[in-house]
Amino acid sequence: MTTNYQAILASIAADIQPELGQGQVATYIPELAAADPRAFGMALYHLPTNQLYQVGQAQQRFSIQSISKLFSTTLAFQLMGEYLWQRVGREPSGTAFNSLVQLEVENGIPRNPFINAGALVVTDILTSRFVQPEQALVQFLRRLANTADLAYNPQVAQSEIQTGHRNLAMTHFMKSFGNLENQPEQVIHAYCRHCAIEMSCVDLAYAVAFLANQGRAPWLEKEILDTSSAKRLTALMLTCGTYDAAGEFAYRVGLPAKSGVGGGIVAVLPGHWTVCVWSPALAPSGNSHAGMLALEWLTTRTGESLF
Amino acid sequence: MTTNYQAILASIAADIQPELGQGQVATYIPELAAADPRAFGMALYHLPTNQLYQVGQAQQRFSIQSISKLFSTTLAFQLMGEYLWQRVGREPSGTAFNSLVQLEVENGIPRNPFINAGALVVTDILTSRFVQPEQALVQFLRRLANTADLAYNPQVAQSEIQTGHRNLAMTHFMKSFGNLENQPEQVIHAYCRHCAIEMSCVDLAYAVAFLANQGRAPWLEKEILDTSSAKRLTALMLTCGTYDAAGEFAYRVGLPAKSGVGGGIVAVLPGHWTVCVWSPALAPSGNSHAGMLALEWLTTRTGESLF
Amino acid sequence: MTTNYQAILASIAADIQPELGQGQVATYIPELAAADPRAFGMALYHLPTNQLYQVGQAQQRFSIQSISKLFSTTLAFQLMGEYLWQRVGREPSGTAFNSLVQLEVENGIPRNPFINAGALVVTDILTSRFVQPEQALVQFLRRLANTADLAYNPQVAQSEIQTGHRNLAMTHFMKSFGNLENQPEQVIHAYCRHCAIEMSCVDLAYAVAFLANQGRAPWLEKEILDTSSAKRLTALMLTCGTYDAAGEFAYRVGLPAKSGVGGGIVAVLPGHWTVCVWSPALAPSGNSHAGMLALEWLTTRTGESLF
Amino acid sequence: MTTNYQAILASIAADIQPELGQGQVATYIPELAAADPRAFGMALYHLPTNQLYQVGQAQQRFSIQSISKLFSTTLAFQLMGEYLWQRVGREPSGTAFNSLVQLEVENGIPRNPFINAGALVVTDILTSRFVQPEQALVQFLRRLANTADLAYNPQVAQSEIQTGHRNLAMTHFMKSFGNLENQPEQVIHAYCRHCAIEMSCVDLAYAVAFLANQGRAPWLEKEILDTSSAKRLTALMLTCGTYDAAGEFAYRVGLPAKSGVGGGIVAVLPGHWTVCVWSPALAPSGNSHAGMLALEWLTTRTGESLF
Repeated sequence: MTTNYQAILASIAADIQPELGQGQVATYIPELAAADPRAFGMALYHLPTNQLYQVGQAQQRFSIQSISKLFSTTLAFQLMGEYLWQRVGREPSGTAFNSLVQLEVENGIPRNPFINAGALVVTDILTSRFVQPEQALVQFLRRLANTADLAYNPQVAQSEIQTGHRNLAMTHFMKSFGNLENQPEQVIHAYCRHCAIEMSCVDLAYAVAFLANQGRAPWLEKEILDTSSAKRLTALMLTCGTYDAAGEFAYRVGLPAKSGVGGGIVAVLPGHWTVCVWSPALAPSGNSHAGMLALEWLTTRTGESLF
Repeated sequence: MTTNYQAILASIAADIQPELGQGQVATYIPELAAADPRAFGMALYHLPTNQLYQVGQAQQRFSIQSISKLFSTTLAFQLMGEYLWQRVGREPSGTAFNSLVQLEVENGIPRNPFINAGALVVTDILTSRFVQPEQALVQFLRRLANTADLAYNPQVAQSEIQTGHRNLAMTHFMKSFGNLENQPEQVIHAYCRHCAIEMSCVDLAYAVAFLANQGRAPWLEKEILDTSSAKRLTALMLTCGTYDAAGEFAYRVGLPAKSGVGGGIVAVLPGHWTVCVWSPALAPSGNSHAGMLALEWLTTRTGESLF
Repeated sequence: MTTNYQAILASIAADIQPELGQGQVATYIPELAAADPRAFGMALYHLPTNQLYQVGQAQQRFSIQSISKLFSTTLAFQLMGEYLWQRVGREPSGTAFNSLVQLEVENGIPRNPFINAGALVVTDILTSRFVQPEQALVQFLRRLANTADLAYNPQVAQSEIQTGHRNLAMTHFMKSFGNLENQPEQVIHAYCRHCAIEMSCVDLAYAVAFLANQGRAPWLEKEILDTSSAKRLTALMLTCGTYDAAGEFAYRVGLPAKSGVGGGIVAVLPGHWTVCVWSPALAPSGNSHAGMLALEWLTTRTGESLF
Repeated sequence: MTTNYQAILASIAADIQPELGQGQVATYIPELAAADPRAFGMALYHLPTNQLYQVGQAQQRFSIQSISKLFSTTLAFQLMGEYLWQRVGREPSGTAFNSLVQLEVENGIPRNPFINAGALVVTDILTSRFVQPEQALVQFLRRLANTADLAYNPQVAQSEIQTGHRNLAMTHFMKSFGNLENQPEQVIHAYCRHCAIEMSCVDLAYAVAFLANQGRAPWLEKEILDTSSAKRLTALMLTCGTYDAAGEFAYRVGLPAKSGVGGGIVAVLPGHWTVCVWSPALAPSGNSHAGMLALEWLTTRTGESLF
């Protein structure tokens, strides 16, 4: 029997109404604080049928924030392969996404590429390889999402740079351990621009298709990653993709996922589908409150999850 | 096309030869130290065909050690449902399996049921429910593995009790936080007997079948857990089942798994199969060196994994 | 000009009235919880004139609790000399008096003998040397305080033993690191009896006289410690004697001191005098609120302190 | 009987010969690495007689490095009084001088003003008050040391700035917690210039005279600090002045002291004398190896110490 994805998305969008606005929109920069806490959108891309399903504000672009870590890591992994893991680990952090404690204990090697410190190392790698690392990622995402008009929001990037003392602290800290090749300011600039890229649920559901499809986006001739690498990166999303709520997320939702404080969450069910949900009000864990709930309902109502 | 599991197991057993004996057999108790570091066995139980495949010393019984945590947690979960998570967390620990640091910072609530502190809380729950918590687990395992003659090794249990000052430290520590109902000595006795249960790869491949089969062991009428609970426990295995190497394990192997210092590792591919591998020499992470490699080869050679 | 100590003690006792009862009496065992929060006593023993000054309930005996750590350390130091520091450190802990974190990071070697873990190691040393370590300390204190009728309160000791899961945790933890020679239960029994010794301000002012007098109590022929050792132990009191408020205490009071949760604090001004103050209501740091204030006023009003 | 300080200094200088060069000269900047590891000087300023005693290279200027923290703290304390402690604590850190761990746990409030993070906060305060905070400190030191020609070495300051990623990390980190008023770069520039001030043992023995003299330098009309504040700052030196070896230092030497990686250590015996010793080769604790030994011998041979 085929799953009626459209009906399920519609039922989720209906049932989620009372939950919208619960939690807190990120307020550390004015651009994010201005988001409508009750906004909601969801897009599911079904691979076997090449069908896209959507509901709510699924075409509304938002700040992808930490979801960019997934793509910068993909790009660095493409460039460096397994050597990447000499500069960043592959274990869940067990602490907050912006903690410096572990970094000190473990001599400047971040736990994984999906926490801030790890993404800064990844950005350092891209900064060494590309003259304009922010354009490199934007162009990579245009290919992945099959859309020509993606860009980063320069005001958001500027606001992030101005408030980013903790990220600067991390970058200088890693530099002091010898785990940064470029100047901290350069790396921070690229990193903040990556976070400021704006995409919609539809864009993002397409952009992660290669992960659910053995490393190849259906609309591209060349593979993004080889099959094994795509699977490995997906595994890493599951164990490390949702900050210090990775265990909880795997337990409740059962999908590899990456979230951002802009309220977006992307997730994949390898071989079957990808999904992106967006709602700006965040749970205390930093993940979208309505987004987590919508994904939990999706796996429950489709009966489809990893486990 | 059907996978030829028997041929793949045979090829793994052949190729693993040069790896056998690499690493260190656990030596903290004499009974484990006496294990043959070059022993190797593997069993795969295929659910759709109800077929068992085996290679090497797959019927040789060994000390299941921490693999018992998976079953004691299942039993406690069966009894308490979601209330279980008021006494133990669901997040990867990010630190060594026997660390007390996190326990202090988090007021006596262990990170997850698969590290020592968490399993001690689980055992405390079973100690409150059963007059003989060790017999309760043995009998539960007889049903799960569909075999009548399982038992724990009393000498191994006794040795564990005598060397278990760190476990006693943890137990008293949690008692001081109010997260232990019974006397520490009682809990430790039951816990050490759980660890001392002896099973073979074949026994264990059967014993985890319910997890890969929506909560029901094929040979039992009543389900062990409901579908959702079985999936959730499987997710927890993936994020927390292999100590502080959970990220690495998911990355390389891509299967939910639980390991023990006796050299055994069980893993499941939901809907498809379960597997158990055993080889006593351990990698520094505390997981069987040859066992991890064999599982990595299994997912590579079958092309079957979670991701 | 001579200081009029009696007048100063009287003025302190008068001025302290509105402060009495502020803070919380220790409640973890019923015997301590029953103490009068407004009780207050103070005794100063002036060495050059061999004169004792007292005010309030200076002859009322109370539970010395952690002040016993000073005397058990003295006894162990007398026995082992500098070898003592192979089993326990000499640095301020920077964390709570009953933390296990540092113990794990530093492989079972406690930071100093004045936190619980350190005093447990000291008690272990005494347990190896004496058949009845509790009687050994009681007799040592009788000599030090020049009084024949000191004893420990068996009910207090029993209550401490029953609630002491955290101390048991520490003891087993150190045993697991090889830093404990005797059985944890034995060590805990002796330790709790040490804490349950009852002395008055007068008793304690006499008992620390040897520290302010180059190692020799005026009424004893034999020295307790050689001059250098007495000075060193006094230095240790200053840096480590008042839990994690050692810096604050040195800053405000400027005297080497040791406090207990029974509300007592002893302090010394080498070459000049010793002092003991008692008032059961504790500040959040675990030190007597009125006691700390009284000592601060004493150094201010006499103009006499270490600095 | 009067102590013959000159004879004692001479005996120390003679006996220290085999110890010179043991340990490691600081190498993180070329200017410090060039220091002669066997250099040695010592100066003692006796307050009651206004007499200066010296031996070896006591008039050779060297980089005062962290000893500057004592003087910048004095200046900030003079300006802010007890309000200073709202921005920085007064407890020993128990961890390395440049750790960020405690800073994270304690929300950006450094443990004390004598570790790097604390001194950076102190420098931030001076940066807010003075247009040229580095000149302010230099002029303050000229008055304190009664010498007109002190200055900082601009090359040393420049080298420190270039290698100071860890200090920058700390500064940005504290800024992220709201505990920094000025721009991190500004604060670092002033801080590195403070560290690069060059003084001799004679200069420094004079410069700390106010601390041993109830807050007043004998050659100045106005007091530097009131009596109580001077005593309090001296107490802080004892508990926090020698990094994570404060307990060890108090135990062995028994004097309030402040050390620097340039190899200098200043110490005071309130009411009696001040001392400065210099020898560039450092013990693992970061304190001058020969310097610590010389001070230990000084208190032993004079029989004069705090305790």
